[in-house]
Amino acid sequence: MKQSSAFIPTLKDSPADAEVASHRLLVRAGFMRRVASGIYELLPLGARVVRNIERIVREEMNAAGAQEVILPIMQPRELWEESGRWSKYGPEMMRLKDRADRDFGLGPTHEEVITDLVRSNVSSWRDLPLNLYQIGDKFRDEMRPRFGLLRGREFIMKDGYSFDRDEEGMRRSYQAMYDAYGRIFTRSGCTWRAVEADTGLIGGDVSHEFMVPAAVGEDDIAYCEGCDYAANVTLATFKRAEPLRGEGKAAEKVHTPEKRTIEEVSSFLGLGPDRFIKCLMFLVEDKPVAVLVPGDREANETKLERVLGTDEFRLFIEDDWKRFPSYLQGFVGPVGLQAAEVIADVALAGAGGMVCGANEEDYHLAGVDEGRDFTAGRFEDITSAREGDVCPRCSGTLRIEAGIEVGQVFQLGLKYSEPMRCYYDDEDGVSRPMVMGTYGIGVTRLMSAIIEQHHDERGMLWPLAVAPALLHILPLNYEREERRSAARELYERCQERGWEVLLDDREESAGVKFADADLIGIPYRAVVGKGYDEDGTIELQVRTTGEKNKMDMDSLMGLLQQAVDTLADERPHVS
Amino acid sequence: MKQSSAFIPTLKDSPADAEVASHRLLVRAGFMRRVASGIYELLPLGARVVRNIERIVREEMNAAGAQEVILPIMQPRELWEESGRWSKYGPEMMRLKDRADRDFGLGPTHEEVITDLVRSNVSSWRDLPLNLYQIGDKFRDEMRPRFGLLRGREFIMKDGYSFDRDEEGMRRSYQAMYDAYGRIFTRSGCTWRAVEADTGLIGGDVSHEFMVPAAVGEDDIAYCEGCDYAANVTLATFKRAEPLRGEGKAAEKVHTPEKRTIEEVSSFLGLGPDRFIKCLMFLVEDKPVAVLVPGDREANETKLERVLGTDEFRLFIEDDWKRFPSYLQGFVGPVGLQAAEVIADVALAGAGGMVCGANEEDYHLAGVDEGRDFTAGRFEDITSAREGDVCPRCSGTLRIEAGIEVGQVFQLGLKYSEPMRCYYDDEDGVSRPMVMGTYGIGVTRLMSAIIEQHHDERGMLWPLAVAPALLHILPLNYEREERRSAARELYERCQERGWEVLLDDREESAGVKFADADLIGIPYRAVVGKGYDEDGTIELQVRTTGEKNKMDMDSLMGLLQQAVDTLADERPHVS
Repeated sequence: MKQSSAFIPTLKDSPADAEVASHRLLVRAGFMRRVASGIYELLPLGARVVRNIERIVREEMNAAGAQEVILPIMQPRELWEESGRWSKYGPEMMRLKDRADRDFGLGPTHEEVITDLVRSNVSSWRDLPLNLYQIGDKFRDEMRPRFGLLRGREFIMKDGYSFDRDEEGMRRSYQAMYDAYGRIFTRSGCTWRAVEADTGLIGGDVSHEFMVPAAVGEDDIAYCEGCDYAANVTLATFKRAEPLRGEGKAAEKVHTPEKRTIEEVSSFLGLGPDRFIKCLMFLVEDKPVAVLVPGDREANETKLERVLGTDEFRLFIEDDWKRFPSYLQGFVGPVGLQAAEVIADVALAGAGGMVCGANEEDYHLAGVDEGRDFTAGRFEDITSAREGDVCPRCSGTLRIEAGIEVGQVFQLGLKYSEPMRCYYDDEDGVSRPMVMGTYGIGVTRLMSAIIEQHHDERGMLWPLAVAPALLHILPLNYEREERRSAARELYERCQERGWEVLLDDREESAGVKFADADLIGIPYRAVVGKGYDEDGTIELQVRTTGEKNKMDMDSLMGLLQQAVDTLADERPHVS
Repeated sequence: MKQSSAFIPTLKDSPADAEVASHRLLVRAGFMRRVASGIYELLPLGARVVRNIERIVREEMNAAGAQEVILPIMQPRELWEESGRWSKYGPEMMRLKDRADRDFGLGPTHEEVITDLVRSNVSSWRDLPLNLYQIGDKFRDEMRPRFGLLRGREFIMKDGYSFDRDEEGMRRSYQAMYDAYGRIFTRSGCTWRAVEADTGLIGGDVSHEFMVPAAVGEDDIAYCEGCDYAANVTLATFKRAEPLRGEGKAAEKVHTPEKRTIEEVSSFLGLGPDRFIKCLMFLVEDKPVAVLVPGDREANETKLERVLGTDEFRLFIEDDWKRFPSYLQGFVGPVGLQAAEVIADVALAGAGGMVCGANEEDYHLAGVDEGRDFTAGRFEDITSAREGDVCPRCSGTLRIEAGIEVGQVFQLGLKYSEPMRCYYDDEDGVSRPMVMGTYGIGVTRLMSAIIEQHHDERGMLWPLAVAPALLHILPLNYEREERRSAARELYERCQERGWEVLLDDREESAGVKFADADLIGIPYRAVVGKGYDEDGTIELQVRTTGEKNKMDMDSLMGLLQQAVDTLADERPHVS
């Protein structure tokens, strides 16, 4: 690729709407442009990176025994009605009607389509296990698209689905995908962490997310310093400290005029927030439910959903307070409280000497003991882990870090095969539901995540395996015939070996060339300049380390060949 | 790929809705399945063929200097309003609203998006020419989806767009794409013909379609036996014979009770249909227009559209006949006719002794001479060429054949750059519109077209370059240990060379194995059977020719290597 004719529209300034490095740099370096909110065009260099990631994904999927298919983007409503997700998916699914007024969704994921395909074409235990994947466009009408490709509305995903005869088979398939995912992210140049995760709209029992730690990540991960425990904070659990104890005295009413929040009452009474019981009112399937958590903790809605067994719940809004006037906003407390259910965090079991709302305007109760003054219908794990909490597995210390979710794997079990009647006949002729798994990688999101981990103030630092080119050839003062012909010779020698290279054949100043090269971030750079005039050497620069070495063209080719060979060694051996 | 675990659900019976061989065979051989009308899933073997075609397309595009991009499927209405196509495209465009109630179309083609990209990022003559392409999903809500992938509603296309400084540059870009297209279709194993074509909804002045001759083709191509003239019949012109002459007598009224059609009147009067003037009434932009063609010819609506300069016209329907009662259905004729315009085919200029409707119930006129009894406002080329007509270029004989359109190239000129203000500054600083071309290949349609040209009664006959595998290994009686280990050895040796091979490791009868292999149509087949027990030979069979040769494994590997090398020689040399 010659830069004079390549479409690489670099920009001096960052786009106004770019809040994160990957978004900023992809636009500035001419890798992508915005078409509409959450919808982007990938230009030649961006498309190359995507194709490189796709190649790694394909190699690892094929090596792990998965088979590539191509599923349609348009999915008929009828299939989604079978799984119950047509209504459940809500406005996140892009929908349209065809000219015959039939409803279609633009696939945000393909469980329904693949389950339909397999139930119609597989009927015997002999044909299982089966693992199918595709790489293609996905659509999600995000409420708030942001961060460029990190949260877009149209994006490229690899999605895969496994079908097994039993739970044990599913776990094997799951593990194979889990391992392959790890290799994919490693080969793509990322450091990553697999964490226990919630299953959300996809469903199923067990799930792991693959997180690329990065400051801009929208997920928080809790991980243990001492063992390999790691989980999304929406799910992470932790060992509670011994409950606080009171002095055994009876609870007493305290006047707390106009003090409604924990912060206000805590500072008014001079007691730490951990001495308080936060009593949160939720409307759960149209009934009032009280949720108790320690005053210094937040209720975790994902955990709450699991505990409640429904996603139809919300924290009281203005209307709810009006509808149930016996709950006094700011002064609700568990003592003497009437509610459909009272659920407390396990930390509150046995706690004493606590402060809580008195269910009376401008009053709190102090010296409240759980067990004596109130109790809960259930004690559950409903608060989020935070930095410094105790690991549930080894009692080490938990740390919290931000991460970008680049992949997720799910043990689905029978979630789709049961309602959609995806059955097979076992060796005894008995009809059984297939046990499924589902596996996704955000390809375009991974591209952004790689940049978040690999950039500096001057531009991107592409890992070799996904880089848009191996080598950037920079002849300085291109009008000088000798330098030009040396650069061209090098270019042609690389092309002959099938390597992607970018030759900066523009008649631009050295400053412009270096700035663009830094921005674009191709791993190796060959500078043909003064050294070439003096003794025929070319300077090989490594973008990541800044390392520079002068050498003749043959040595340079040798070094690059080594890098290419090392990369090839990472490819799976297919058999 | 081992057949025991590969997802290749072959069927004994053809699907009921499959009218053509490619549709039938793709389903029967387990290459694809239907999801909804015009929407299909490609299974592993189908996906492989598509990827192979895509690879060829990529290689030729890159070699021709085009650069790959990835454009979004969702396109904002605003861009399509700029080109005027939001309303013009009509119900063929799939449309949706996002959660903010904004209108989007699912790209049936990408002129608007790419023009917007280029106008925002290219401003200098130095950056031109520019040629960008993508390979991706396209959507067209066909009125009548049919023939499987030949006319689907969701399909894979390669679309490309060139931007030049002037007409001459555009013609160079066009020629480069035209040449690349020819190589792509040749490498894909097709015989093809490039024909002059109409520009339809895409627009522009000059266009060629790449046609793969096939009986099921929906297009008719006229081509000359004597020279290289070839055009879609919607466009093909031909030299008219000398007009018929009359005997100079005055026209006379003939009673033709209840005879309305040319056929009825012709047989009633005992005169050939070429003696008749067919007078067709069209409603053009709400006005009645009479169109005259020889009685043995049809009016060609594509030519008519060009002549009328509008696509807003239709042949009279019942309502129109009622609205304009002075036109008597079945007895309309040009003599004394009042219409907004009268347009006649050039063949009628100077024709005499003709028969036409008398504009009176149950009467025709005979002995009518053009010029004396009537004339037309314009004489134009408005009828279709047919078998045996005279070539407009060399006076040779025209032949008509059916073809499948697998690609089309257009010289767009300023059609998009002018209304969308896609301008550049020339060397003198003068702002000029870019001159565009647009180029498309139906990737999934090409897969079907290849099959239409390459199949027999037993199954498909894949050309090597696009085949789902190079070799199909068929060990007969797989339970025999020696044959099994020989088959596996061959399989592994092929894998080591990076070749795609399919090993039939199923414990099926030879009959089932051969039937499936014939259906799937992999070019080479290695049968490990009796010969192997006797003298260690394997039978190499060629699917297309049926040729069979016994040889040892090394010789077989040598022959396959030759085939692979020959294929590699067809790849373009990139520089």
